[in-house]
Amino acid sequence: MARVSDAEESSPRPFEAVVSAETAQTVVGLVGALVDECCLHLDDDGVRIPAVDPASVAMVDLELSDDAFEAYEAGGGRIGVDVDRLAAVVGMADRGQRVALALDPETRTLEIVIDELEYTLALIDPEAIRSPPDLSETAVDLTGEAVVDADVIDQALRAADMVANQIAFGIDADAKTFYVEAEGDTDDVSLALTADDLVDFTPGDAHSLFSLDYLNAINRAIADAPDIGLQLGTETPIEIGYEFADGAGAVEYVVSPRRAVEY
Amino acid sequence: MARVSDAEESSPRPFEAVVSAETAQTVVGLVGALVDECCLHLDDDGVRIPAVDPASVAMVDLELSDDAFEAYEAGGGRIGVDVDRLAAVVGMADRGQRVALALDPETRTLEIVIDELEYTLALIDPEAIRSPPDLSETAVDLTGEAVVDADVIDQALRAADMVANQIAFGIDADAKTFYVEAEGDTDDVSLALTADDLVDFTPGDAHSLFSLDYLNAINRAIADAPDIGLQLGTETPIEIGYEFADGAGAVEYVVSPRRAVEY
Amino acid sequence: MARVSDAEESSPRPFEAVVSAETAQTVVGLVGALVDECCLHLDDDGVRIPAVDPASVAMVDLELSDDAFEAYEAGGGRIGVDVDRLAAVVGMADRGQRVALALDPETRTLEIVIDELEYTLALIDPEAIRSPPDLSETAVDLTGEAVVDADVIDQALRAADMVANQIAFGIDADAKTFYVEAEGDTDDVSLALTADDLVDFTPGDAHSLFSLDYLNAINRAIADAPDIGLQLGTETPIEIGYEFADGAGAVEYVVSPRRAVEY
Repeated sequence: MARVSDAEESSPRPFEAVVSAETAQTVVGLVGALVDECCLHLDDDGVRIPAVDPASVAMVDLELSDDAFEAYEAGGGRIGVDVDRLAAVVGMADRGQRVALALDPETRTLEIVIDELEYTLALIDPEAIRSPPDLSETAVDLTGEAVVDADVIDQALRAADMVANQIAFGIDADAKTFYVEAEGDTDDVSLALTADDLVDFTPGDAHSLFSLDYLNAINRAIADAPDIGLQLGTETPIEIGYEFADGAGAVEYVVSPRRAVEY
Repeated sequence: MARVSDAEESSPRPFEAVVSAETAQTVVGLVGALVDECCLHLDDDGVRIPAVDPASVAMVDLELSDDAFEAYEAGGGRIGVDVDRLAAVVGMADRGQRVALALDPETRTLEIVIDELEYTLALIDPEAIRSPPDLSETAVDLTGEAVVDADVIDQALRAADMVANQIAFGIDADAKTFYVEAEGDTDDVSLALTADDLVDFTPGDAHSLFSLDYLNAINRAIADAPDIGLQLGTETPIEIGYEFADGAGAVEYVVSPRRAVEY
Repeated sequence: MARVSDAEESSPRPFEAVVSAETAQTVVGLVGALVDECCLHLDDDGVRIPAVDPASVAMVDLELSDDAFEAYEAGGGRIGVDVDRLAAVVGMADRGQRVALALDPETRTLEIVIDELEYTLALIDPEAIRSPPDLSETAVDLTGEAVVDADVIDQALRAADMVANQIAFGIDADAKTFYVEAEGDTDDVSLALTADDLVDFTPGDAHSLFSLDYLNAINRAIADAPDIGLQLGTETPIEIGYEFADGAGAVEYVVSPRRAVEY
C-alpha cells in the first residue's frame, strides 16, 4: 500500500485491461462521490485509487484486484483522470457489455473501448492531483464496529437530512446498541440497533458528529451495497467500507468528525 | 361528525396507532393536495382530518376508521401537524413497512417509528390552523351524481389543462350524459359519458365551472383510485369522493365553483 | 409524390381516420424532432408529411400508408397543424387506445377523439408553413449505404456529444468499414464497423461532417427503431431512414453537411 512518489515511477507504463461495465461503473461512482479528478495506481496485482476531497474532510481508498478483470496487465505507475468524464464514458456501456482500457504512453491518453466504440481520454498530470495523506501513519482509536444493512443507513440519513445538517454516529457499549442521531430545531431523528438488527457488531463506546453532506454523497454512491461496515471512535473519523465485484473490489471511506457547536 | 371546538377537548390525550406505510402515505397525499398544515382529530373510532385550502376555495374531509389500523388507541382531542414534513417521513417507509405513531402530550411531539428509525415531529398549535366551515350547515343543492373511472377524469383534466384554466362539469338529464368541457382560445376539449360508460349514474341537470388548479391538485392525489364519485349541481360546489384502505378510509373534497366570466 | 401547390387543392376536403395510439405517437415524435408546425398531406392512399427545420439544415419526409390505419378516408388536400399540441393530445392516449381523426372543413378544425374524450384542434393555414424543397429535383451523389443497429448509433452520438458539436460519418471502401468520428479539444470518439457488425452494407467512399444538434434530435425521435438505414456521400447530405408500423410507415431524414472548419 506504499504510495508511488518518485517521478520515474509516476510515468505511465503499459496498461491493458478488460472489465465488466457494471464493475467499471461501480468504481467511478464510488470515487466520483468525493472527487472530480483522481489518480489510478496501475499496480501489477490490480488498480488502487486513493483520493481526498477538495476540503480534505473525506478520503476514499478503493482497490480493485486483477481478479475483477477479464484481462489485466499493468507495469506500475499511475495516471490522472477526470472522473466525471470517465464516468460518462463507462456509463454509456449497457449491462453485459465490457469496457476495455489501454494506455497510450506516447500521447498520454487512455483508450476506452466498448464493443466497436472507441473513446480517447486525455490524461491529467498525476502531479497536479492532490494525494491523500497516508492513513497508515495516522493513529486513530476506533473503538467499535457495526456492519449494517445499507438500506437502514440510507433511511436514517434521509430522515436526518430533513431536520439537520449534521449527524452523530455512536455505540453505547452498556446498552449494546449502535445508534445514529440528528437533532433539528424542532424535529429529531434517531436510529438504535442492537446486535439482532446488525449483520455484525463489536460494541465499544463511541460518539462522533459528522457533516451530512459528505455522508449523503457517500450514501448515494454505495446505494447498491447489501451491507456496509462502520468503524467508530469518540471524536474520531468514521470508516465506512464494503466489498464489491464478488469480493475482488473493496472501498473504504474515511470522514473526519465535526466538533459539536457549543453555545 | 361534530367538530371539536372547546379548548379542553383540543388538548392532546393519549394516542398510539400502527398503520401500513401504504395507508399512511395515501392519507398524507390526499390531505397534502390542498393544505400544508392540518388538524388530526384523534377520535376513539378513528382519525378525521377536515381542512380548507388557504384561499377557501376547496375543502377536504378525510376519515380513517380504526379498522384501517393494526393497532389504535385514542382518547379524543386533536393535534396540528406540518403535512409536508409528515409526508416526507412516512414517504421514507418502504412498501410492507409499518408506521407506528405515539403522541407525547408533555413535549407536544408525535413519535413516528418505522422499524428501528424514530422521528420526533414537533406539533403545531391546532388553534393556529384554519378550520373548514361545517359543511352540514350549508344547504347545497346537488342534483346529480356520477361515479367515473378515475383514469377517464385524469385524461380529461390533462387535456383541459392544455387549452384553458377552467373547466365545466355537468349533467344533461335529457341526453342522459355526464360531461366535462373546457374552452380555450383556439382549441376545445369535451368528454361526454352515458350510463354505459359510468360505474354509476344518477342524472339530474347540473352545470358548474371550476378552476383547473384545484381539480388538478386533487386529481394528482387520487391518481390511484379505481373510480371516483362526483356530486354536481348548477353553480354549486362539486363533491369528489372515494374510499380507500379497503373501505376503512374515505375522503371527500368540496371545490367551490367559479362564476363564468361574462363580457 | 408530387407536391400539392395550387390553392384549390390545398383547401381541406373530407378526412376521417382511425389509428393506434402507438402509431400516432410515433408519427408526431418523428416530425416533432425537427419542426413545431407542419402540413399533413391527406392523400387518398395515406398521409404524407414533408417538413423542413427553421434553419433549413434538416428535412423530414414521412409517409404513413392507409394500411397503417384501422379506417381511412381522405380526398386530398392538406392541413397545417401545431405539432407540439398534436403530440400532447395523442400523447395522452394509453397503449391500446385508438385515436380517431376527423376534419371539419367549415370550422377548419381537426376533431381528435380518444374513446369518449374529444379534442378540437384549430388548424394552421398551410400557406403559412414553410415547405421543403423537392428532393427529387436535387442531384445528390450518395456513394454508400449502411444499415446499422440503432443502439450502436445512439451510443456513438452520446459519446460524440461529450467531446464535440460536430461529427463525421463516412465509409472507407478499401478497409470495408463504416465509421463515425468526433474530435474534441482533448478527447476523441470513433466507431468503426465492418460488414459483420452491420445489418446491411454497400461500401463506397464517403465522408461528411454534420452538426450534432440535428443528429441528436433525430436520434432521440428514432430511439425505438431496431435498425436504421444511412446513405452517405462525400460532403453531401446524409439520408437517415427506417420503417415503422409494420412497414406501413416510412420516414426519411435528410441532414445537410457542415463544411470542415479550416484554420
